[in-house]
Amino acid sequence: MPSTHRAETFPANTPATSQIFTTVLSHGPLTRLEVARRAGLSAAAVTKAVRPLIEAGYLVEDADQEAPPALGRPANLVRVDGGRALFVGVKVTGDEIIGVLTDLCCRIRVARRVPLARRTPPAVLTAIADLTQELLTEADGLGVRVQGLGVAVSGDVDRAEGSVRYSPFLDWRDVPLAELAATTTGLPVTVDNDVRALTVAEQWFGDGVGLSDFAVVTVGAGIGCGLVVHGRVVAGAHGVAGEIGHVPVDPAGPVCHCGNRGCVEAIAADGAILARIRAATGIEVPDSIAAVDLARRGDAAARQAYAEAGAAIGRGIATVANLLGPERVIISGEGLAAYDLFAEQIRDAFTATAFGSAARCDVRTRPLPFEEWARGAAATAIQSFIGSDVPPRPRSARLQGTVASSRPDPQDTP
Amino acid sequence: MPSTHRAETFPANTPATSQIFTTVLSHGPLTRLEVARRAGLSAAAVTKAVRPLIEAGYLVEDADQEAPPALGRPANLVRVDGGRALFVGVKVTGDEIIGVLTDLCCRIRVARRVPLARRTPPAVLTAIADLTQELLTEADGLGVRVQGLGVAVSGDVDRAEGSVRYSPFLDWRDVPLAELAATTTGLPVTVDNDVRALTVAEQWFGDGVGLSDFAVVTVGAGIGCGLVVHGRVVAGAHGVAGEIGHVPVDPAGPVCHCGNRGCVEAIAADGAILARIRAATGIEVPDSIAAVDLARRGDAAARQAYAEAGAAIGRGIATVANLLGPERVIISGEGLAAYDLFAEQIRDAFTATAFGSAARCDVRTRPLPFEEWARGAAATAIQSFIGSDVPPRPRSARLQGTVASSRPDPQDTP
Ligand SMILES: [Zn+2]
Ligand SMILES: [Zn+2]
Repeated sequence: MPSTHRAETFPANTPATSQIFTTVLSHGPLTRLEVARRAGLSAAAVTKAVRPLIEAGYLVEDADQEAPPALGRPANLVRVDGGRALFVGVKVTGDEIIGVLTDLCCRIRVARRVPLARRTPPAVLTAIADLTQELLTEADGLGVRVQGLGVAVSGDVDRAEGSVRYSPFLDWRDVPLAELAATTTGLPVTVDNDVRALTVAEQWFGDGVGLSDFAVVTVGAGIGCGLVVHGRVVAGAHGVAGEIGHVPVDPAGPVCHCGNRGCVEAIAADGAILARIRAATGIEVPDSIAAVDLARRGDAAARQAYAEAGAAIGRGIATVANLLGPERVIISGEGLAAYDLFAEQIRDAFTATAFGSAARCDVRTRPLPFEEWARGAAATAIQSFIGSDVPPRPRSARLQGTVASSRPDPQDTP
Repeated sequence: MPSTHRAETFPANTPATSQIFTTVLSHGPLTRLEVARRAGLSAAAVTKAVRPLIEAGYLVEDADQEAPPALGRPANLVRVDGGRALFVGVKVTGDEIIGVLTDLCCRIRVARRVPLARRTPPAVLTAIADLTQELLTEADGLGVRVQGLGVAVSGDVDRAEGSVRYSPFLDWRDVPLAELAATTTGLPVTVDNDVRALTVAEQWFGDGVGLSDFAVVTVGAGIGCGLVVHGRVVAGAHGVAGEIGHVPVDPAGPVCHCGNRGCVEAIAADGAILARIRAATGIEVPDSIAAVDLARRGDAAARQAYAEAGAAIGRGIATVANLLGPERVIISGEGLAAYDLFAEQIRDAFTATAFGSAARCDVRTRPLPFEEWARGAAATAIQSFIGSDVPPRPRSARLQGTVASSRPDPQDTP
């Protein structure tokens, strides 16, 4: 019954308000003064923006029990009321879709997985609609309304347009997924690249909290990358960004599905490693589990395939570091299951290739199950709901009039 | 006489004011309403910020002669008074230093070049001081005070610390250039990487005006890159960014001066091309002019060296496009003199390697003489003067308290 889930409007939907809300979401409970410090805004701006959020129930206020009484009147702490709204996040893989129901704090309340028999847009859309309906029923049980659906898909995804331009794993081209899913679910839908969605979750709640420049690199079926520069996820002027998988590291390397030669993904994706092991050993290794097993049992060709994958990933990460100088790179993805087989080569190639102080970048691993990716999709739906998907500044001169006129600055209208 | 050049303080030195000033600088003359639209701020905020700038003479106001009288009271146009302050910009190369005296609009008033006999820090510092003194004398003649000196140096430069961490061409390590130059010139000094400085000039006055995501790629003695993401030049968490020259494109390529193998710079820098031609032909080609000449006369080995350089540059640019999805890439640098020898290969390699819609990026060339680089250095001095070098948001949690407390938000103190 989609019609029962008509979305509310988040109050005072301006960039400053979204930023304040996001700050409380990531760092709260906080005093207003602390919010102001962390968001780089004045205390007056925070007080003004917080009021309607408290009135609408999105933020709540508690007395700070830990504040020393010597400081006089205790400063109240502001936090997000997670139970005020629910969101659905869905991550689509080639084999299954993973859905979560989260609260406004993006805490997972319910998680579900359903296998995907076929990858065609109608089949995936039906699976998304069914899974969402299940989660909406759960939400009804909790008596809280679902305010949005986020869908995360690998490939070239245009979030602003809500369309999947090209997804190699699904073999999709130009699918207007947001519109289709909105029709079938009745919810406002946000569609984003899956790694960018995961990066939002890391920025808000994970190893990217408090960093203005970091990257998430995912290894597995594909090699992806989410980039945060100047505090915001990079989306690219034409929708493509973070395509570390198609960074060319070897002109003599294998041909990639993108048509180019020697991309990181053509050497280091699960399928590329498998293909290489099969070619070198003649063994019809069925899947990555078997490939990892073969390498762990000491097969030289299998070990070599993982070693080369590690070197390609390390060079790709060093490329990101040399171009952007991030404070941290978080390596994740289902490929971490084989991490013992290429960790050393990633590290060595990164160290050899990072230029100057770019090598100071903190490269670390962090296993994140697909439920975390679905949580990232829910985070993008929360972004859309609170309006933080709108950049604080217009993206280009063409858009400036529109953005400024549709979002008056509340800080100057007393 | 350094003491006569004590700098003034720019009024109301806040991020919003700097942004407004920069908007007028790049796009002016503009009405206040148009400034507000372009800067994404409210008209009230602009009016408030503009007042002290007009009072201090940095902005001036003219009636808009072209406004149709039917619209009632004509809106006044605001523009920067270029003659209100002067700046010196210096670009250091391995062979000479190029200095310009610019006004507050960063228009070049005087340009000078002096050869550099030696590249040691004391020799370069003396040359900078002498050239600056010459330009200060010119400024005295104009009766306007010089408010800052910008110095642009290639390599790993930490602008915040004012130090050159590592400059391969100068063979410098950890030179506190800003402090040294401030002592010898008596001016506030901004030191930045030369390509980043050039990128600031392109962002303010060149082919980057109005774009929030673009890159400048420079070819020549080195291969550099300035990146603008989300409207700001990327500096990197540890000072390194835009090192496209050390993006690894061929594991079987020649060894780079950085120690790694197959960097773009090891294939496509002037010296690398020369070395390759010498090795392949046995001819002791003296310099790039002779190398270009040899290739233009049809020498196959020389043509091949340029072709491979073009392919490496094209792959480097595609790497930037795949990771960041910029709207435009501007190719410049003294290496453009040989552009006919590798333009096609740059284009072909870019097209082959750019992933999906990243290929929509507008790749173009733009010849910029070293005076433009020096102008970029002056632009960094103007940035420091007007306070726009301070990021609008704190770079990381560590710095947040400091930034917020030292820069109160004027929009909320009526
Ligand atoms: Zn590829
Ligand atoms: Zn190198």
